[in-house]
Amino acid sequence: MSFNTFGKLFRFTTWGESHGPAIGCVVDGCPPRIKLSESDIQKELNKRKPGQSKFTSQRKEKDKVQILSGIFESKTTGTPISMIIHNEDVRSRDYETIKNKFRPGHADFTYLNKYGIRDYRGGGRQSARETASRVAAGAIAKMVLKNILGKKFKVIGGVTHLGLLGCNINNWNDKEIGKNPFFCPDKSSVKLWEKYLLSIRKAGISCGAIIELRAYGIPVGLGAPIYSKLDADIASALMSINAVKGVNIGAGMNSAFSTGTEHSDEIIKKGNKTIFKTNNAGGILGGISSGQNIVASFAVKPTSSILQSRKTINKFGKNTTISVKGRHDPCVGIRAVPIGEAMLCCVLLDHYLMNKAQCKV
Amino acid sequence: MSFNTFGKLFRFTTWGESHGPAIGCVVDGCPPRIKLSESDIQKELNKRKPGQSKFTSQRKEKDKVQILSGIFESKTTGTPISMIIHNEDVRSRDYETIKNKFRPGHADFTYLNKYGIRDYRGGGRQSARETASRVAAGAIAKMVLKNILGKKFKVIGGVTHLGLLGCNINNWNDKEIGKNPFFCPDKSSVKLWEKYLLSIRKAGISCGAIIELRAYGIPVGLGAPIYSKLDADIASALMSINAVKGVNIGAGMNSAFSTGTEHSDEIIKKGNKTIFKTNNAGGILGGISSGQNIVASFAVKPTSSILQSRKTINKFGKNTTISVKGRHDPCVGIRAVPIGEAMLCCVLLDHYLMNKAQCKV
Amino acid sequence: MSFNTFGKLFRFTTWGESHGPAIGCVVDGCPPRIKLSESDIQKELNKRKPGQSKFTSQRKEKDKVQILSGIFESKTTGTPISMIIHNEDVRSRDYETIKNKFRPGHADFTYLNKYGIRDYRGGGRQSARETASRVAAGAIAKMVLKNILGKKFKVIGGVTHLGLLGCNINNWNDKEIGKNPFFCPDKSSVKLWEKYLLSIRKAGISCGAIIELRAYGIPVGLGAPIYSKLDADIASALMSINAVKGVNIGAGMNSAFSTGTEHSDEIIKKGNKTIFKTNNAGGILGGISSGQNIVASFAVKPTSSILQSRKTINKFGKNTTISVKGRHDPCVGIRAVPIGEAMLCCVLLDHYLMNKAQCKV
Amino acid sequence: MSFNTFGKLFRFTTWGESHGPAIGCVVDGCPPRIKLSESDIQKELNKRKPGQSKFTSQRKEKDKVQILSGIFESKTTGTPISMIIHNEDVRSRDYETIKNKFRPGHADFTYLNKYGIRDYRGGGRQSARETASRVAAGAIAKMVLKNILGKKFKVIGGVTHLGLLGCNINNWNDKEIGKNPFFCPDKSSVKLWEKYLLSIRKAGISCGAIIELRAYGIPVGLGAPIYSKLDADIASALMSINAVKGVNIGAGMNSAFSTGTEHSDEIIKKGNKTIFKTNNAGGILGGISSGQNIVASFAVKPTSSILQSRKTINKFGKNTTISVKGRHDPCVGIRAVPIGEAMLCCVLLDHYLMNKAQCKV
Repeated sequence: MSFNTFGKLFRFTTWGESHGPAIGCVVDGCPPRIKLSESDIQKELNKRKPGQSKFTSQRKEKDKVQILSGIFESKTTGTPISMIIHNEDVRSRDYETIKNKFRPGHADFTYLNKYGIRDYRGGGRQSARETASRVAAGAIAKMVLKNILGKKFKVIGGVTHLGLLGCNINNWNDKEIGKNPFFCPDKSSVKLWEKYLLSIRKAGISCGAIIELRAYGIPVGLGAPIYSKLDADIASALMSINAVKGVNIGAGMNSAFSTGTEHSDEIIKKGNKTIFKTNNAGGILGGISSGQNIVASFAVKPTSSILQSRKTINKFGKNTTISVKGRHDPCVGIRAVPIGEAMLCCVLLDHYLMNKAQCKV
Repeated sequence: MSFNTFGKLFRFTTWGESHGPAIGCVVDGCPPRIKLSESDIQKELNKRKPGQSKFTSQRKEKDKVQILSGIFESKTTGTPISMIIHNEDVRSRDYETIKNKFRPGHADFTYLNKYGIRDYRGGGRQSARETASRVAAGAIAKMVLKNILGKKFKVIGGVTHLGLLGCNINNWNDKEIGKNPFFCPDKSSVKLWEKYLLSIRKAGISCGAIIELRAYGIPVGLGAPIYSKLDADIASALMSINAVKGVNIGAGMNSAFSTGTEHSDEIIKKGNKTIFKTNNAGGILGGISSGQNIVASFAVKPTSSILQSRKTINKFGKNTTISVKGRHDPCVGIRAVPIGEAMLCCVLLDHYLMNKAQCKV
Repeated sequence: MSFNTFGKLFRFTTWGESHGPAIGCVVDGCPPRIKLSESDIQKELNKRKPGQSKFTSQRKEKDKVQILSGIFESKTTGTPISMIIHNEDVRSRDYETIKNKFRPGHADFTYLNKYGIRDYRGGGRQSARETASRVAAGAIAKMVLKNILGKKFKVIGGVTHLGLLGCNINNWNDKEIGKNPFFCPDKSSVKLWEKYLLSIRKAGISCGAIIELRAYGIPVGLGAPIYSKLDADIASALMSINAVKGVNIGAGMNSAFSTGTEHSDEIIKKGNKTIFKTNNAGGILGGISSGQNIVASFAVKPTSSILQSRKTINKFGKNTTISVKGRHDPCVGIRAVPIGEAMLCCVLLDHYLMNKAQCKV
Repeated sequence: MSFNTFGKLFRFTTWGESHGPAIGCVVDGCPPRIKLSESDIQKELNKRKPGQSKFTSQRKEKDKVQILSGIFESKTTGTPISMIIHNEDVRSRDYETIKNKFRPGHADFTYLNKYGIRDYRGGGRQSARETASRVAAGAIAKMVLKNILGKKFKVIGGVTHLGLLGCNINNWNDKEIGKNPFFCPDKSSVKLWEKYLLSIRKAGISCGAIIELRAYGIPVGLGAPIYSKLDADIASALMSINAVKGVNIGAGMNSAFSTGTEHSDEIIKKGNKTIFKTNNAGGILGGISSGQNIVASFAVKPTSSILQSRKTINKFGKNTTISVKGRHDPCVGIRAVPIGEAMLCCVLLDHYLMNKAQCKV
């Protein structure tokens, strides 16, 4: 069972509500003797935290992480690593006016119907605030993978579509991603995106996004057929992120529109190197990594909390309207980048450990 | 761990290779006292089996299922249901010529690198023959759900895109799907598709497809946040099917291109009924079913086994070329329809049982 | 996988080291809408905490629990319940002298060999301090079971053997158990046990114990054959407690010495009631509860930390001797009573939920 | 979830009823490239099969195993290994007379109450016939462990108590065990046991037994604290065997009666060797193997099916009596020896793989 736990051999369990005293997670199955400090984790959390630019929510959270267990003399011990992040800038009164109404596009309606009770403050458990815990767990996975796979290993994500605006994917530049507030890998798109998003925000509306993730330096052999295929686990990992509605591996949905001749990646040998001429597979064949870069992308729907008035019902079953004020991102997809990276790191480490257990005997 | 097992409370474990003596599965966690016979399962298997039209593989398999346990006096007993399907039309010599070469787009390369050994005959374990076991398990899930949810419950899938040809989704008609060899829900598209696929076959190439699944009569409340969200489990289930490269829930990848105003489904009350004005969510909010129809779609890449000659390497690391003869579907996506239906039924039953356990106390 | 997680549908994950800043656990799968407060949990923790009598460790821990998530307006919400207990009376210097030596009977040797690193302070993760988290989780399970099963439900444990001294089991009186510092159910044994344990403590040695657990008001049908039998899960739960070396269900090991005539419990009907004439089965037949009281017992070895000098080696592989000072219980078995109760509650709730999911369709 | 599945990384799922067409299991997670043939498995099955001496059931089953998948060119491929054993000597009419009565000591009453339906023929799923599947799975685990750990590895079990008669444990001789029909390790006890068991059989009654298991050549470090401790998993594995009521590790229940001075095993270094002076721990400290021999024992209750008339009720709730004819073992404990060995092998391999995954990075 895995309600609030992700992973098989490298697992994390998250807990906490948007407006409770704190959120956090417990990472279990982390290999011992890996150097790890709070700052390794903080660095990743800082990428996700709100209030960093005019394009994200103005909620002010330091997202300061504290490690409570599992580390001794600056190294992991193989025992569970518990991490806690205190909630600080909680303005629950913002939510008082909507405590009885179901926000369209949010999980208010389904949570109340499923559980018969819900913590409506800031969305409670359904809030994307939970994803900070994922980023913390992913930071640990990343450190472990670096340790194992060395310098060639890297996981990076970028926003390739901001609403209706795509970027030029051929201009993808890893180094550009950290330099603009959109995690956009194409420098030439940034200016336009800025204008676009400001106009979106001004209009009190919101837009969606597509994020592409790339993993370099992944060995052949990760992935456990049939029901823990690497791509199946990536799909589950990314689809579990708030507001995600679609997941592609390699050529993704577009695979439908190509022929076998175009789609299947030819293989050649150059010296000692195995080279795939294309990467429509996204680095995964039969659910197992092929040694190519892993490429996955996912779509984030537009923020559901918007200023515009929408039709809905309240918990007493009456028709009403709603207009959500609070402090919201005009495009939640932007902050999904470090979350996607984190989830991918966790899946990759999990499969690294599984492969080691089963196949390296 | 779940290498060859799918599900949590309703679980099935599949086994078998394409050219071994048999394939099969063990279904565990099936509720007791449900009427079930081999013919209930055979009916679903017949939808998937090869050799039914000129548009699918000419391998002749009866796919005759035998139940070995778990049934007493025509009813399930709550104990594991073991099912076996004997392989009959096995022509392993077809594969002799390619036993040392890696077919592009297939998992030959990754299986050998991962396991250090592989059963190359008919693709061994990596063959889509394994999916017959999924259909058998899904047939049981469907019977149980019918029993629980009654007549309003239904899961149906249709091919909405055959290669470059889409159908008119507004013409979707459940009853049409069984009447043509493409599982196409739009009668007006069938003729054109026929011509198109014949030309594909003639050219010795292949094309991809998009399949849409719909589930009717699903109650509110199925789905277990955060890491067993209904959509995350559907994504994993569908992505685990051979050749699938993308999964959408509701508006899917297109969600990126809409605004919050367009995307979030407004809610209204009409008499006692809760009505969503649109279904961009695909019937799932926050990972929990909303009572709307569940809508998911997935893309299947074009068959990788094609007559055209392609570059590849052999297992000794030498460059070579390959052209795959055997008996292959010009579009494997077609036969993916009953597999997708089966997986969706399994996920839905699994979540029905989980919701019952946790929330109906 | 379940390194630090216990349970299937009702699960808890514990974390923390003896001398870290805190310990705690995350309870996942708790049904919603159950009244629950910190004091419900504190009550159980107080039974286990050290320093309560001259017969237990003098470490002073308030064991004050704080709930960080999962509760809204005094009720469970179905989301994870995170609990934290801060460590207070940490005297790590006590352990400085032994940081390089392996204490016989402790896990020092195996932890270091397994993980290549260990937090030696107070035994780190291997310390029985971890069991406070189990008691906290068990307190929640107990509240939920009371809510579901009503007043007839009760789980209680008592010490039946304190070292060489047994008590008269026929005098078992639930109400007596809370009235003496040994959790002894037989009033007539208390005086003698007091003298005995004082002499043990004075001599700087230690003794073992046997604890018997009883669960009343358990319905027929809990237990999932074949590998999650109720007795198998109880055995795993109890054997996982620090220092436990044996587990019995009903007649237990003595079953070997009886005949089928004596052992198998005859069944009779009296009015509407099904009555078993004896309870050698301990309330479990074929891994499923029979409606009789569940009876299980377990043996706790004598405290390994003793004043007497013992032969051992240090981590550099040299022969040496050790004598453990610190603050230790002369009989750790006593404080195992609330831990055993907690584990049994968790197993019972877990099986209640599983049975509900699978069999009550 | 693990209703009919045992293990984490090395897992097997069993299926089948006593009087159905067949029983079998699917082994998942077996490492690739291990030589394995049906005869390796048959050898172990032959130790368990009935009808081999006058001291066991006269049911004639060849217990001939067939491997259906997972092997290619005589080696494991890393894919699931499906095994089937056909039932042959099925005499269901023996059970007709008791189909409505609950046999005391059997699970008839609990199965019917739990599932609302039961296959009464030969005990259906609750029959010990299921254990043949365990032995088949265990045979594979044994082969893999031999392959990994080499010649020093060995798992062997012996009956140390046959009803009231113990053997002299100091005379334990591995080689003696295969030479008598009781798996007795002490040659001097065999004669007496023979007489004793014949008298038991003649009287139409039955007796219990204690089996001791020993594993040699186990490396330090197997076992995953806290909830997958090696001893907790062994306890669960052994308690899940039909008719088992108690499990001991090392000194077991007797640990309660010793002092810390006697119980904790002193450690010394002799040359390069770490030596424990005693083995009260049974080779496990803090849930982790110490490199000593693993020693575990378990008690099997006397066969419940006896000729003597016993009081019981029928499924209509009426008082009645029962006397069981059929073909039963006077002491089922004897045939539990290979089952215990099999389960121990599975647990050890599982933990070997887990340790490799987590700790050998």
